[in-house]
Amino acid sequence: MIWQYFAPLSRSCAGARGLRDDAACLTPPLGHQIVITTDGNIGGVHFPLNAPPWVMAHRSLAVNLSDLAAMGARPWVYSLSLSAPASFFSEQVLAPFCRTLGHLQQDYGITLSGGDTTVYNGPPHIHITALGLVPRGQALHRDGARDGDDLYVSGRIGDAGRGLRLWQAGQREGQDSDLLAYLAPTPRLALGQGLRGLASACMDISDGFLGDLGHLCHASHVTAHVNVEDIPLNPHLPWQDAIGCGDDYELLFTAPPQHRGAIARLGAGLNLPLTRVGYIEGIYEPFLQPVALKHGGLPVTVSAPSFRHF
Amino acid sequence: MIWQYFAPLSRSCAGARGLRDDAACLTPPLGHQIVITTDGNIGGVHFPLNAPPWVMAHRSLAVNLSDLAAMGARPWVYSLSLSAPASFFSEQVLAPFCRTLGHLQQDYGITLSGGDTTVYNGPPHIHITALGLVPRGQALHRDGARDGDDLYVSGRIGDAGRGLRLWQAGQREGQDSDLLAYLAPTPRLALGQGLRGLASACMDISDGFLGDLGHLCHASHVTAHVNVEDIPLNPHLPWQDAIGCGDDYELLFTAPPQHRGAIARLGAGLNLPLTRVGYIEGIYEPFLQPVALKHGGLPVTVSAPSFRHF
Repeated sequence: MIWQYFAPLSRSCAGARGLRDDAACLTPPLGHQIVITTDGNIGGVHFPLNAPPWVMAHRSLAVNLSDLAAMGARPWVYSLSLSAPASFFSEQVLAPFCRTLGHLQQDYGITLSGGDTTVYNGPPHIHITALGLVPRGQALHRDGARDGDDLYVSGRIGDAGRGLRLWQAGQREGQDSDLLAYLAPTPRLALGQGLRGLASACMDISDGFLGDLGHLCHASHVTAHVNVEDIPLNPHLPWQDAIGCGDDYELLFTAPPQHRGAIARLGAGLNLPLTRVGYIEGIYEPFLQPVALKHGGLPVTVSAPSFRHF
Repeated sequence: MIWQYFAPLSRSCAGARGLRDDAACLTPPLGHQIVITTDGNIGGVHFPLNAPPWVMAHRSLAVNLSDLAAMGARPWVYSLSLSAPASFFSEQVLAPFCRTLGHLQQDYGITLSGGDTTVYNGPPHIHITALGLVPRGQALHRDGARDGDDLYVSGRIGDAGRGLRLWQAGQREGQDSDLLAYLAPTPRLALGQGLRGLASACMDISDGFLGDLGHLCHASHVTAHVNVEDIPLNPHLPWQDAIGCGDDYELLFTAPPQHRGAIARLGAGLNLPLTRVGYIEGIYEPFLQPVALKHGGLPVTVSAPSFRHF
């Protein structure tokens, strides 16, 4: 019963053979490396327990795709390990869940290679491992930021954070773009691939702008200088909240100044704002905050939360 | 804290870069295909809730390795997505859990490429995706059994099933080999790789000899003929139970008769019994039981259970 929903999702993966074997057999294209990422999505932790099936499906696959985007990879295949209560394995849930996975597969060119399902009593666990492809040696990493690099962010920061507040306040319907930014994040795959050869470091923002910028700086052994006024922020949140809340899934990246023109053209071609929000300095103290924020010209300190509850 | 336990497990995976990036970047060797498999292991479903950490680690990785063995692949890398209550993320649990993963990595030549951990309130979920390598075109599949092929099984059937009964009866200590067969199954990786070019079909036995033989026959559109007396069974279980219980993780495979000598030499070289237990007939009725069992020369029918409870 269950695999009648999932087998069609593997149709364009020849090596999955309709999910009939113990495993799928994939042929990697010549000259490429494989990027592999895993994210668990658990009801009540990563998405609300009362989220509809399409939200569970979209978020779970999109956050993995976002990791591929951060590495500059193009999506290839993913596997799905799903454990959930018996009520999940019904037409009512599986049909919209798999329909949403199918839409994302089409939009981003990825296909299901296999998976595993288990019935148990507890919240749904949706564990996805996604594989992407990147031309050899061209993957982006978070440890490449260097002294003098520009610091950029894509899209707008805090939209998903405000969307979560709207959800928590009971809003469900309507086309509010902040609510959609939270429920159905857009992985920046075309951007990530376009940044190969331009960006010196890249990562996706899942835990909040400030916290993730700290991760990038620690990995690169550098300090970032940012004027808060330069960050494209959601106008409905206090700036301290907007730079601290998670789930943006925008890309945060650095590049040497000579690539400013190319990066502007890339953003224009993708119709996606790419905003220069600061610069990198090659100074690093492992036990100090590596992000120097200014607001109104004065240094400010904000503690970055990195957890969520429902 | 958590990644201090896991990062050393990725040390021999250059592309994991100490688990610092959003994803790992792997270089597949030329001329190989990638075999990918995913299994979720949930406390209270796949292993007892009171299983010690080393058992959770061993079983979770071994069942994935067994899927690679069934495809004739050699292990390459695996990712781990772990969701568990806060008590799991303590020295007391993580130290033996990771020590056991490390031992298996050494024994079978696989390395951690990355993963994800989540704290939640509920039984531990250990989702592993394992990648293996197989020379192009040489993977084993379960749909290749043909009329006149011999049917083989490795090792002994029912040992793990008896081990589970011992565990359920309260036995914990001692070197009982059946208990160990259940707690720490041995993936038949060298056998799977040795069967490339010999076996026409192959799969691992996770749901019980009878049920999984049915899967192989349905996939291959054939019927299997088996004399129960020819199956190497655990002597402490009724034969009906031994061929029905799961968790054996032996390999079930078919091969044309001209490979009998090569298969005997392979088993001798591995010091692993490979027993010819029947033959394949090219007759198939999709809605009939595709396994014709005889006991004492007379046809017998056994219904195969394929679920477990703790």
